[in-house]
Amino acid sequence: MLSFIRPAIAQLSAYKPHPGSITGDAASHSPVLDRLDTNESANDLPKELKQKLAQLYLHPLEANRYPDGSHHQLKEAIAQYVNESAQLTPESALSSAQICLGNGSDELIRSILMATCLGESAGILTANPTFSMYGILAQTLGIPVVTVDRDSQTFETDLQAAQNAIDSPRPPIRVVFMVHPNSPTGNPLTTQEIQWLEQLPPEILVVIDEAYFEFSQHTLVPEFDRHPNWVILRTFSKAFRLASHRVGYAIGHPEFIEALEKVRLPYNLPTFSQLAALLVLQNRQPLLSAIDPLLQEREHLKERLNQISQLNVWPSAANFLYARLHSTAQLTHQEIGDRLKAQGTLIRHTGGGLRITIGNPDENQRTYQRLNSLFASVAIPN
Amino acid sequence: MLSFIRPAIAQLSAYKPHPGSITGDAASHSPVLDRLDTNESANDLPKELKQKLAQLYLHPLEANRYPDGSHHQLKEAIAQYVNESAQLTPESALSSAQICLGNGSDELIRSILMATCLGESAGILTANPTFSMYGILAQTLGIPVVTVDRDSQTFETDLQAAQNAIDSPRPPIRVVFMVHPNSPTGNPLTTQEIQWLEQLPPEILVVIDEAYFEFSQHTLVPEFDRHPNWVILRTFSKAFRLASHRVGYAIGHPEFIEALEKVRLPYNLPTFSQLAALLVLQNRQPLLSAIDPLLQEREHLKERLNQISQLNVWPSAANFLYARLHSTAQLTHQEIGDRLKAQGTLIRHTGGGLRITIGNPDENQRTYQRLNSLFASVAIPN
Repeated sequence: MLSFIRPAIAQLSAYKPHPGSITGDAASHSPVLDRLDTNESANDLPKELKQKLAQLYLHPLEANRYPDGSHHQLKEAIAQYVNESAQLTPESALSSAQICLGNGSDELIRSILMATCLGESAGILTANPTFSMYGILAQTLGIPVVTVDRDSQTFETDLQAAQNAIDSPRPPIRVVFMVHPNSPTGNPLTTQEIQWLEQLPPEILVVIDEAYFEFSQHTLVPEFDRHPNWVILRTFSKAFRLASHRVGYAIGHPEFIEALEKVRLPYNLPTFSQLAALLVLQNRQPLLSAIDPLLQEREHLKERLNQISQLNVWPSAANFLYARLHSTAQLTHQEIGDRLKAQGTLIRHTGGGLRITIGNPDENQRTYQRLNSLFASVAIPN
Repeated sequence: MLSFIRPAIAQLSAYKPHPGSITGDAASHSPVLDRLDTNESANDLPKELKQKLAQLYLHPLEANRYPDGSHHQLKEAIAQYVNESAQLTPESALSSAQICLGNGSDELIRSILMATCLGESAGILTANPTFSMYGILAQTLGIPVVTVDRDSQTFETDLQAAQNAIDSPRPPIRVVFMVHPNSPTGNPLTTQEIQWLEQLPPEILVVIDEAYFEFSQHTLVPEFDRHPNWVILRTFSKAFRLASHRVGYAIGHPEFIEALEKVRLPYNLPTFSQLAALLVLQNRQPLLSAIDPLLQEREHLKERLNQISQLNVWPSAANFLYARLHSTAQLTHQEIGDRLKAQGTLIRHTGGGLRITIGNPDENQRTYQRLNSLFASVAIPN
């Protein structure tokens, strides 16, 4: 080990980009691979939008010039969208001073950790299973991570354990991360969970990751007035189909947003990514109207998968399903993931179960058929 | 102040994107504004390259899919370019395992700080004036910054002061940042400076920022074999005209590169930015052949500006000039910057002088004329 590298770094595992995302180049994907492992949209942007963006790239975008580091125009458009989608009255409307943009939500999570816990011996609290990046990014900054469990049937946070963690002085918890609805389990926050978050003291920051808001249509944005210690994360990578462009945003108290702006990289968003996010907001109706059919597909797939007797599939408020094997099943989660992959369907083995993104109807049909024949093949011994 | 924000954050100033870069949208620039304040290329990519990229965006790029998080293909292309431009023999050639990619060099600087100094009470050393982001990013991570001066005539680092800083235990210096050639002063590292860097002990990381390599054609890449504690930073934002796309890279020992990969954001580079960097490397000849005429423009402008008796202009190995007023001058640097801006020429007032990017011939001609009339106007009282 080179002696100038921090010893703690040696203990970290390098994040391995998920196999479905390793392409080498954008063209190398087999056209029949069903990539249902990263909760992306199954559909690219409509052709007209891509053409419009390509035109803007040719002119007036100047590839040789640094991006707008203020993000002014995009912040304005996001504030308008957030207000509209949360049906806020003009009096309670959020302003662009409550928006910070990141290179995906990942950069915002890092900024939040840097602005709150870094070097303070303060830690974060998460309820597992959940999105892994909170813990991974905390580790890279030497920030302690306290985890509590979820109910094995409802996936609701163990609120007693969470309160115990808050009450324990070592480490003091400064940030609580919650996903609404949660990934990989698909459940939105319950009334009890929200009430627990509401009574947390003002010196604890509550981060509510609404990456899947467009699918759930549940948002805690209207609660902002009463909770200056809340921040909401959103992304353009899911419903808005811009995963390749890497744009996420935080909604928060203007004073906290100012702190996030201080620690972010000044030119963190490429010009073309800013333009893409702006254009999808300006043309959001065709994108958002694709959500209802997707939710119908999700319900249809859930019903069919639940007919497989060895599989337990949970309700979901997002664009994916979460399933676990019954204890009597003759296969492991790992084996199922491996066999599906061999047939061309990528799903995610995580949190002690399987997370399956809702794809297009053909993909969902194949998901069902492949899983069904897989269990049928083991149910009947040779 | 919200109590969950670290007190140290309150003392930071938010980075203010330089006025020349605030656009709101890419189309809002006045066509006659001479943007000579951020050392960008004056020219956009050739039209054919932009068209090729726009085509790739339409197909096969999938906007809805996460980027390749391995950067495999781009790393290979960069390694080949680095080897070729440093004229390395096949035996001493670098591999792609010695390359890490960042959202501009900024993200790489942050990763370097996180992998070495964070939470260790170890500090960094810089020689002022120099690129400001080393110090700014260190501050956001709570890392001490030790600065030494440069010679006021040659801008060579005060090596005695630098050695004293290394010898002082508080704070222990773990990383030395040097720009080669330096910004804003334009001078490459001298033999004495390089010899001083070479004798630093192996527990100190030496970062050599070669952002302007394509202009200087001086690189320390051939020294890698002998110095596992050296890392070199490069960017696509200058000679390769991709400032809008945000792509930088680090070249280093495979073990250190592995540490940088562990702390970086997994999907830090948008797909389109990766494609753009790949395409400019594959088509680098037309871009690099524009450098010789630019260097001639630089020399021509330097000669003319040095005819202005109140101005001292230094030799430069980069795509900009650095100038300071004689002590007898009847204007301040700030006044010159302001007056040029009022006329439509943006330059940078930094490090106790003026940094002027070399633009296209028309822009350079205006730079000379405007500066010349400005001094003429104050030399002759009304």
